[in-house]
Amino acid sequence: MSKLTLIPLGGMGNVTQNMYLYEYENEILIVDCGIGFPDHYMPGVDILIPDISYLLKRIEQGSKIVGMILSHGHDDHIAATPYLLPHLPEDFPIYGSPLTAVFAEQRMGDGKVQRKVTVVSDKKTEKISNFFSAEFISVTHSVPDTKHIVIHTPEGIIYHGTDFKLDPAPVDGKVTDMQAISALKDRNVLCMLIDCLGVEKSEWVKSESTCGPAIEQTMAETKGKYVLTLMSSHIHRIQQAVNAAEKFNRKVAFIGRSVEQNVKNAVDLKMLHIPDGVQIDKRDLDQHADDKLCVIVAGSQGQEGSSLVRAIFGDHRILQIKQNDKVVFSASAIPGSELNYYGAIDELSRNGIHVVYPTLLPDLHQSGHGSAPEQHEIVSSIMPQYLMPIGGQDRHRVLFDTVVAEKLGYSQDAVLMPSTGEVLGFENGKVSVVDTITLKPQVVDGLGVGDVGPIVLSDRRMLGQAGMVVVVMPRFKGRLELDKIKVISKGFVFVKEADEVVQFIRQETAKIAADNKAPKDDQGLTKLIEKRLARKLYKIIRREPMIIPVILDL
Amino acid sequence: MSKLTLIPLGGMGNVTQNMYLYEYENEILIVDCGIGFPDHYMPGVDILIPDISYLLKRIEQGSKIVGMILSHGHDDHIAATPYLLPHLPEDFPIYGSPLTAVFAEQRMGDGKVQRKVTVVSDKKTEKISNFFSAEFISVTHSVPDTKHIVIHTPEGIIYHGTDFKLDPAPVDGKVTDMQAISALKDRNVLCMLIDCLGVEKSEWVKSESTCGPAIEQTMAETKGKYVLTLMSSHIHRIQQAVNAAEKFNRKVAFIGRSVEQNVKNAVDLKMLHIPDGVQIDKRDLDQHADDKLCVIVAGSQGQEGSSLVRAIFGDHRILQIKQNDKVVFSASAIPGSELNYYGAIDELSRNGIHVVYPTLLPDLHQSGHGSAPEQHEIVSSIMPQYLMPIGGQDRHRVLFDTVVAEKLGYSQDAVLMPSTGEVLGFENGKVSVVDTITLKPQVVDGLGVGDVGPIVLSDRRMLGQAGMVVVVMPRFKGRLELDKIKVISKGFVFVKEADEVVQFIRQETAKIAADNKAPKDDQGLTKLIEKRLARKLYKIIRREPMIIPVILDL
Repeated sequence: MSKLTLIPLGGMGNVTQNMYLYEYENEILIVDCGIGFPDHYMPGVDILIPDISYLLKRIEQGSKIVGMILSHGHDDHIAATPYLLPHLPEDFPIYGSPLTAVFAEQRMGDGKVQRKVTVVSDKKTEKISNFFSAEFISVTHSVPDTKHIVIHTPEGIIYHGTDFKLDPAPVDGKVTDMQAISALKDRNVLCMLIDCLGVEKSEWVKSESTCGPAIEQTMAETKGKYVLTLMSSHIHRIQQAVNAAEKFNRKVAFIGRSVEQNVKNAVDLKMLHIPDGVQIDKRDLDQHADDKLCVIVAGSQGQEGSSLVRAIFGDHRILQIKQNDKVVFSASAIPGSELNYYGAIDELSRNGIHVVYPTLLPDLHQSGHGSAPEQHEIVSSIMPQYLMPIGGQDRHRVLFDTVVAEKLGYSQDAVLMPSTGEVLGFENGKVSVVDTITLKPQVVDGLGVGDVGPIVLSDRRMLGQAGMVVVVMPRFKGRLELDKIKVISKGFVFVKEADEVVQFIRQETAKIAADNKAPKDDQGLTKLIEKRLARKLYKIIRREPMIIPVILDL
Repeated sequence: MSKLTLIPLGGMGNVTQNMYLYEYENEILIVDCGIGFPDHYMPGVDILIPDISYLLKRIEQGSKIVGMILSHGHDDHIAATPYLLPHLPEDFPIYGSPLTAVFAEQRMGDGKVQRKVTVVSDKKTEKISNFFSAEFISVTHSVPDTKHIVIHTPEGIIYHGTDFKLDPAPVDGKVTDMQAISALKDRNVLCMLIDCLGVEKSEWVKSESTCGPAIEQTMAETKGKYVLTLMSSHIHRIQQAVNAAEKFNRKVAFIGRSVEQNVKNAVDLKMLHIPDGVQIDKRDLDQHADDKLCVIVAGSQGQEGSSLVRAIFGDHRILQIKQNDKVVFSASAIPGSELNYYGAIDELSRNGIHVVYPTLLPDLHQSGHGSAPEQHEIVSSIMPQYLMPIGGQDRHRVLFDTVVAEKLGYSQDAVLMPSTGEVLGFENGKVSVVDTITLKPQVVDGLGVGDVGPIVLSDRRMLGQAGMVVVVMPRFKGRLELDKIKVISKGFVFVKEADEVVQFIRQETAKIAADNKAPKDDQGLTKLIEKRLARKLYKIIRREPMIIPVILDL
């Protein structure tokens, strides 16, 4: 094993579920602890969390977690803490910037985990352990107080550069600290991890501060309530909406648990400034004329059950959306959410509500992820020995190699793109894959963690596509009662209309079971029935329900 | 009832499933007969077709179908014919342009329906019946030979303007016939139906002929096979790829049933020109060096089971995709297909295959649907009395009203946006909603049409989200055998790990059933068990599987 190893736990080629381990001798430093979001191959699943079996094994073997650093306050970087911290020792510090700290503590508290986050600042190096220390560099992103992390190790400096953009005019005036970044050029950085999600964009991403005028523009023409929806952690977007509301003499109310919490936390930290008298309690909405209201509401992806969607369908206790109101989406659709997102917009249109979204007014949203030229800029300011694109899908990593790294003269060997589970070792300035660990998707479904595995998920997919047919064969004193077979079917055909199909299944099962050549053992018999029925049903109706033959001993 | 009625059967506010009835006295003229595509609320469903119950009722009452006009060769305008024609009289003619005719006959043949399509041309008026006649106007779109239809009725002229763009430089040189369109201005058009899908775009859509240079550019740099994927009916895109292949001295092979059929049909009609010696049989791919090949393959949305996706995963008999090959997506993701589409691109990237797609090179795809200014142009050339936006979602219809109709001085009353099922009546130049009919989603699932209704679909959704638990209670001589209860569970928890949950369900069921206060009737008892178990399971594990208590009489 090399002296310094880097173990990505979130799986490479993923945007979310960020969690990285740095290991030196018996010390382990963790960076980020985020959740992932299930796709349609994981129906019913709430969230995904990183697989920490490797980490647990190393602790058992005597390694020690020396600290956990959280880069910024997005859920895919902090929200796995309530699930994972209870399985880890309690003696290591967790570090984060002021806003990241309160966001993370909030998440932990939601999961009944009480841990304080040590607040860090940019100007000093945090000594973490014998082998690790860390510096923090301010960068711009779609949540304030985002940091890149300069990790000092005995093998050299690692620049851990998660989500960022190079906003030339951020809302709080705090641009990315290019001076601190450029100062690293002379310090011979060993490896730079760098957010590559925006690499498909060839033009510099526009400043977040261009969203304010777009919000103002849409607010100016609004006759009734101005209803704005956005990512609930987007404090700078919220700031611009508050400023616009003040200008147009509208009171601001926040609706949705996450946005209410985040606003409160950001105000407490003085990172969000709401002038006196502007904010009202959401329960006092009806105390104000519609044209004096700006309502900021969660649900910008049209998520089922979100405050916005409930309001759209008339199911919200407080927020009614009426003619003359305007609903503004200050967010684009996230890949995979298009149907919900546009579904919400269509429903509003159908109801005669004026709705504006970035397709119509692009400046209503600007991405928080820097484009290829921004990635180029930050890499060229440091020129580390190795580059490792993170935070993107595989297409982004590969494209980063071509349009950023290659253009800066990096050879393919110098661009690290480990597969899921590959452990990178650094020793004497050289890197190699030193180990491959198994990373299983860790699924959170309801209150269960990990009990929903690949079989349960594949069953759900099959059930969801074509339903199921349970065939119960009672057995009395070792004899199958083939005239008493019961067929239970759901999601297959509408039973009232499909008596013949059920009848057919019953007869077919009896015939197979009565055949002298049928297997004598239960497993053999049920397997045979399953296979034969599947084939016959496919032939008759070209569908593949899950078929479950069951012998019921009496 | 008014003299002339217009009945949209495909549901308004839908992009697909196009089918419109025009009715005058006892005559019915049909325009288009297309399928729709199910979303995630319709799991397992193959396609949707229009609900023709109203049409069947009218025929029963003595009305007569006088003809069916097909506007162009896309499946959402022609592919319901094999499902619906068998239910209709066989004595009416079907009209279409030459390419539309062969595409439609192919679709019908796939469904074992033998009907000839009467080929129409632009320069003559087709006398259809006593009350109806039709003229055809050439427009540009993403399939050649697309027509707008001028329907002459005793109440006036209806301009039926389905999918179109105003391509200034189409690949075959045949621009939209603006002369014929403008000539309608003096003829007092009563109502214009008009494709509004592209209304969110404020800039004129670029010409299809800009795709050719993008294809050439990507082909020029390709070291191995050039693999191009696109919509299989996009004959002009295919033409440009063939031209590029000829230029770069590559042989062209087509892979995928639909693309092979469409190419053959278009070549037969001389609408696609493949120079001698350029095309090769797909089975001869291995007879040529990779750098002398251009393979045009179906699967541009990354559809599961498509030729491209099978090739990507190494499951295609003929097509292997290797290092040095380049895969080019000449299509953007259709809303709802993003995960499959980008999934295919990520898989290729992961395998080290160079892949190019419109996000990186926008000219690789141009939309076939005209923007707001194109819609403005065509409407202003005719200035009909009424406008009716079609072919878009509700947000497009509503936006059309604002950015096209209103700007041309139309009042809201003159822009018709009927809800699903609303029948419009025209009489003496006035329009009103004269009837509302019920339109149920007609679902095609395997070989079954219509037997998968809302209950089956909602069961599938529930099964797919959280699985199911069947609880079988045997009853012998009227007595429930509560010690013999059997629990069958799939997609809920992994049973091997969850014996306790199953044990718990068995005990809980026995307890409920044994209670003296339990309902004495089967339905009451099973309902109670379902309710109680659901509540308990939700409390314990926060999941909601489908619970199916069954009494099995012996």
